[in-house]
Order: sequence, then structure tokens, then C-alpha cells
Amino acid sequence: MERQFDDYKAIVNKHLLDFIPVIDNKSISLYDAMKYSLTAGGKRLRPALLLAACEFAGGNIKEALPYAIAVEYIHTYSLIHDDLPAMDNDDLRRGLPTNHKVYGEAMAILAGDGLLNTAFEVMYKDMMMYFDDAAQMTKRVKASYEIAKGAGCRGMVAGQVSDIESEDSDISGEMLEYIHINKTGALIKAAIRAGLYMGNASSEMIEKMDVYAENLGLSFQIADDILDVVGNVEELGKNIGQDQKDNKNTYTSIYGLDAAYKRLDELSKAALDAIADYYDNAEFFSKLIDELKNRTK
Amino acid sequence: MERQFDDYKAIVNKHLLDFIPVIDNKSISLYDAMKYSLTAGGKRLRPALLLAACEFAGGNIKEALPYAIAVEYIHTYSLIHDDLPAMDNDDLRRGLPTNHKVYGEAMAILAGDGLLNTAFEVMYKDMMMYFDDAAQMTKRVKASYEIAKGAGCRGMVAGQVSDIESEDSDISGEMLEYIHINKTGALIKAAIRAGLYMGNASSEMIEKMDVYAENLGLSFQIADDILDVVGNVEELGKNIGQDQKDNKNTYTSIYGLDAAYKRLDELSKAALDAIADYYDNAEFFSKLIDELKNRTK
Repeated sequence: MERQFDDYKAIVNKHLLDFIPVIDNKSISLYDAMKYSLTAGGKRLRPALLLAACEFAGGNIKEALPYAIAVEYIHTYSLIHDDLPAMDNDDLRRGLPTNHKVYGEAMAILAGDGLLNTAFEVMYKDMMMYFDDAAQMTKRVKASYEIAKGAGCRGMVAGQVSDIESEDSDISGEMLEYIHINKTGALIKAAIRAGLYMGNASSEMIEKMDVYAENLGLSFQIADDILDVVGNVEELGKNIGQDQKDNKNTYTSIYGLDAAYKRLDELSKAALDAIADYYDNAEFFSKLIDELKNRTK
Repeated sequence: MERQFDDYKAIVNKHLLDFIPVIDNKSISLYDAMKYSLTAGGKRLRPALLLAACEFAGGNIKEALPYAIAVEYIHTYSLIHDDLPAMDNDDLRRGLPTNHKVYGEAMAILAGDGLLNTAFEVMYKDMMMYFDDAAQMTKRVKASYEIAKGAGCRGMVAGQVSDIESEDSDISGEMLEYIHINKTGALIKAAIRAGLYMGNASSEMIEKMDVYAENLGLSFQIADDILDVVGNVEELGKNIGQDQKDNKNTYTSIYGLDAAYKRLDELSKAALDAIADYYDNAEFFSKLIDELKNRTK
């Protein structure tokens, strides 16, 4: 019996704070601010994908755990910075006040910086246990590099820049897709790749999962755009109609709701096709696509 | 003939932009904002220390270069975020408008995030060239871990948090030292350690250089505090008297100018004592201490 999404989520939640280094008492407020956003709910999609990808490839999720946690730290830092007044200026996230609403802007910036730094510290610390073992270090360096690349200037940060720059102006569907691929897709793809490396996946499997990941990442953002129109506040834990209010370009604003649903269908199919060869032990990954589609209904 | 500070600085300046990954044309504004702060002057103290430490230990600075550049990316990100309106709210840095004054707050936050991410990407990328060579990977992981730790929640970020929190209130000399050790000292010490690892230094040398680094880091901040009182705007490229204006706690505000000079003398002596055994080939490191003292006169 394969592990389900909620099983991975429970593992992530259980160990989420274990990897934060012991912080001096004088900086306890920094720890509080970091912890606040880490524990304020969240789907844990990226770390769950990383752990699932590791097991999918035949690896041991204990080895993948530091990398899964690091990815969630990076995701959380990005949300804290995204919510800042100078950025999206959001007051509410996952049903709770955003970090800067509770701790102030300066601390929110530093809590984000702290989480990003800590993510890398966690991964290096794990690598430090495998000196003299080139194979063990190699897969860890590969996993970490994917995560750094997915988070950085050719990934999430680039997407966020284009997203901010395109506010209040009409953009092409191509530009919108560029934003989504980078802002959301890059770290999702990186998480899956990192998990696959930790499980010593074959290059054939990595190639096919790349296609799955790209389609999943885009689906995920389109589903998010759809939910901002048809979702309800209680279920989502954030205000709906916010994208429209902020003059954000979304799949629904550019193409309309029907076309967004249609694109979601296409992408879902492409994601499932990519992993068809592995159908027997890819239940986690195929189910995720189905659930994503159902969330928007 | 040993290399001088300006030789290292020239090497850093020459290669400073070489390690930024090719950024998509759609994110060119991100590249511009990152480049602006990277090339807006700067002493290049941390990367110079890293390169010098590598050569001091008998290593090849070509190997250390990616780590030196990564440290300067991290230092630059920290300056961009420090200058933000929510933090120190500085308009002028190294004689030029600060990043957010030119590119706006959102981009300044993202340019900082981009530089921090890129620093780690650069280091991982370098490690990727040494698969199958455990010794080469090991020293690189050690160097990177030091840098991540020095930059993170037990280092620079912690110092910045305490600095922000202590504004507008009187703090003890002990707390001030805690701030300095973390905000400025941690990354300086990490840079020196990283360079020593890259040069395969003995643990005895690393221990002694730790003492040097701790004294240098604190000296450097005290010299900075003194310069904020006695320096001149043209030479410094930033406003003087800014600390007092911001109600910042500094060595001079807590102990007075004379005691600050005295402490600088003590620390300088301790730094030089620590490297006394290496006197014949530690010219770079001893000269640096002398120059630091002279800067404040």
C-alpha cells in the first residue's frame, strides 16, 4: 500500500521545526516569526512531492526528509516576502494574519531571509554527514542544486519579478505562462527532481517526471486562479476575488473561466500520460492530478 | 611577494558578474537591480579575506573564487535589505542612491532574495564539477556550510534582528557586542574559514585564524562606529552622524570615543597575537589590522 498525500503531510508537519538550528535566546523573536509562518497551515505540497518522488524511485524518505523540509522553508520564505506591503500587500494567509501584520515589516523581511538561509544550512548540514562517500554526497549536491536553481533568479524569484512588473498592465498569455512556470512551477519541479535524486532514480524516470512536474506546476497555478474566482473564503483561508482587486493577470482574467477549465483538463491529461509507464506504482502522482481538478469544481 | 588587498579586490571586481546565471530576458530588470548594487563600489573585504585565507593555507585561489564571489553576493543582499524603508531606511550607500531608491521597494526585496539564492547556486554549481572526488567535495561542503551558517539565523540575520530591536532603546555593552559579532563578525569569520578549508588548512591554523577573525570582525565594526562620528562624507560615500540620528546603539554612543579607540587597540593586538606564529607569511592579515586602525584616525 502506497503512502497517501496526508501521510507525507503528517511526516512534514511532525518534523517541520526539527531542522531549525538552535537560535540564541537573544534572537528568540526571529525564531517566533519564522515558526509562526511555518506552522500557520499550508498544504505541504512541495515537501510531500519530494518525499513521494524519493519513494517512487525506490529511495528511503528518511534520507530525503532534510531536503523536503528545506523546500518548505523556501516556500514559506517566499510567501512571507510576497505578502509584504511593497509586494502583494496581503493581510490574510491561510486564514491567519500575514507575518508582517503580526511581527512588523522589518521582522517579516528578516524571518524570510532567515528561512531561506536556514534551508541551505539544513541541506549542507546533512551533506556533512557523508564525507568520504562520494556517491552519497553527489546525490545530495544534485538535489540541493535543483532546489537552489528552482528558487533563484532563473526560477521562483524571476517569476515573482515578472508577476510584480505585470501588475496593472495587460500581458500576453505567453507572459502569464512564463510567470506561472517560474513563480510556482520551478520549485515544484525542483522538489520532485530533488526527491528523485535522493532515491537514485534513472535518467529515464527523471525525464518523464519532468514532464509530469511541468504539467502539474502549471495545473496547480491555473487551479489557484480558478479558485480565486469560484472558491469560498472559509475553505481557502484567504480572501477571494483578490487577484481581480489587485489587477492581477490570471488564467481566468486573460482567457475566461471556461478556457481555464479546458487548459486544466489538457494539462492534467499530459501529466498523467507522462507517467503512464509507471502506472502501477504512481498512484500518489496520478491521484494528485485528479484531486487538483476536483478542488476547482 | 604576497598579494596585497588591492590585488584580491581587483580579482573579485573582475569576476563579480561572471557567476550570475544566464537570466531570461523577461527578468532583465532583476539582473539590472542585482548588478547595480554589486557594482556600486564596496571594499570587497569578505571575498578578499576568503581568497587570502586560501592562499595563506597554501591553496589555489582559482578554486576559492566561486566561494569568494558567493560571499560578496550574500553581503550585498544584506546591504540591500538593510537599507529598505522598513529596516534602516537609508537613501545613500557607497555614495550612490540605495537599491530601493532606484528600483523601488518590491524589486529591492527581490534583488536581495535573488542574490542570496544565487550565492548558494554558485557554490552548488562548483561542487557539481567534483562528483566522484570525495576530498574535493568535502572541502567545498565545509566551506559552503560555514558561509550558510555565518549568513543565517545564528549569524548575520540574528545580528540584524537584534540591531533592529534595539533601536530607540538603551542596551548593554554585552548586547551591543552580540549584535556586532553576529551582524558583521559572523560572515567575516565564515569567509576566512571557507578560504582556509579551500586551502586545506590544518585544524591548528583554523583555530588560530578563528581568533584573528573574531577580533578583526569586532574591530571592523568599532572602526565603522568611530568613522560614523569622525569620518567625512566624501571619503565614506555615506552620511555621517546617521547612527546618532537613527538612535542606534554604537560603541561610541555607549562607551564614548576614547574608550572605543582603546577597545580597537586591544582587539587589534589580540588579532595580531593570534597569528604571531605565522608572522612570515601573514603580511596580508597583519597589514589589514594596521590599516583598519589608521582608517579611523
